[in-house]
Amino acid sequence: MKDKNCGYCMKDEHLDAFGIHICDLPNSVLVLFKEQSHPGRVIVAYKDHVSEIVDISDEEVAAFYKDVRKVAAVIHKVFNPDKINYGAYGDTSGHLHVHIVPKYKDEFEWGGTFEMNPKKKFLSDAEYKEMIDKIKAEL
Amino acid sequence: MKDKNCGYCMKDEHLDAFGIHICDLPNSVLVLFKEQSHPGRVIVAYKDHVSEIVDISDEEVAAFYKDVRKVAAVIHKVFNPDKINYGAYGDTSGHLHVHIVPKYKDEFEWGGTFEMNPKKKFLSDAEYKEMIDKIKAEL
Repeated sequence: MKDKNCGYCMKDEHLDAFGIHICDLPNSVLVLFKEQSHPGRVIVAYKDHVSEIVDISDEEVAAFYKDVRKVAAVIHKVFNPDKINYGAYGDTSGHLHVHIVPKYKDEFEWGGTFEMNPKKKFLSDAEYKEMIDKIKAEL
Repeated sequence: MKDKNCGYCMKDEHLDAFGIHICDLPNSVLVLFKEQSHPGRVIVAYKDHVSEIVDISDEEVAAFYKDVRKVAAVIHKVFNPDKINYGAYGDTSGHLHVHIVPKYKDEFEWGGTFEMNPKKKFLSDAEYKEMIDKIKAEL
């Protein structure tokens, strides 16, 4: 179940516009979010092109959230946030994905929700690579 | 595992401040969100006072998301939104909960995230009761 206009399915320029493919996990695709106002922000997208958790079975949701939980544990370990926020929106997207957003006490957007894309803080290719290497080392 | 200062644990005035207890589910507490800018907005809180999915096992996450998925399916059936958003924040709360936010094409906040609490649209007790009755009838 792939959609040729979907970045999570094709890992093409649609994905490059906002993310960097880190790796595939058993039931998902792990993506570094280029906008790094929240250090360690990533996306876990489901392996198939489905819209919401109501469109897959309880067993498939469990398998997907096993990946989400594992990624969140890695982000906690590597970046040491005070909390992680988990948001699945995609009103105009057809591909189930969860924004994993580390929050740091008294820093950006602490105590509230988070913006879809603050478009404020982008890193160099070397800095992205360093983050990805740290994440992959713990997966 | 209950916290006496937590509305999800105590179902007391801390909860009354923003929600109405609909019912308990096998692994969670279902709450109607009083602010109804997004018709059908509810919260599914975990049965125990834990902070995040990383603090419970894969099996417990699966059981919790079985409830989340069931509630989302009911909200789709009763309110017929075009998409549901799922957000877990709680930077300053210690109790895992997911905001289930129905979105309607071209209406409030369509295409983006959602505010924690827009504080714009509240209903009468009779209207809340009617919503709760509709939800309970499908659970």
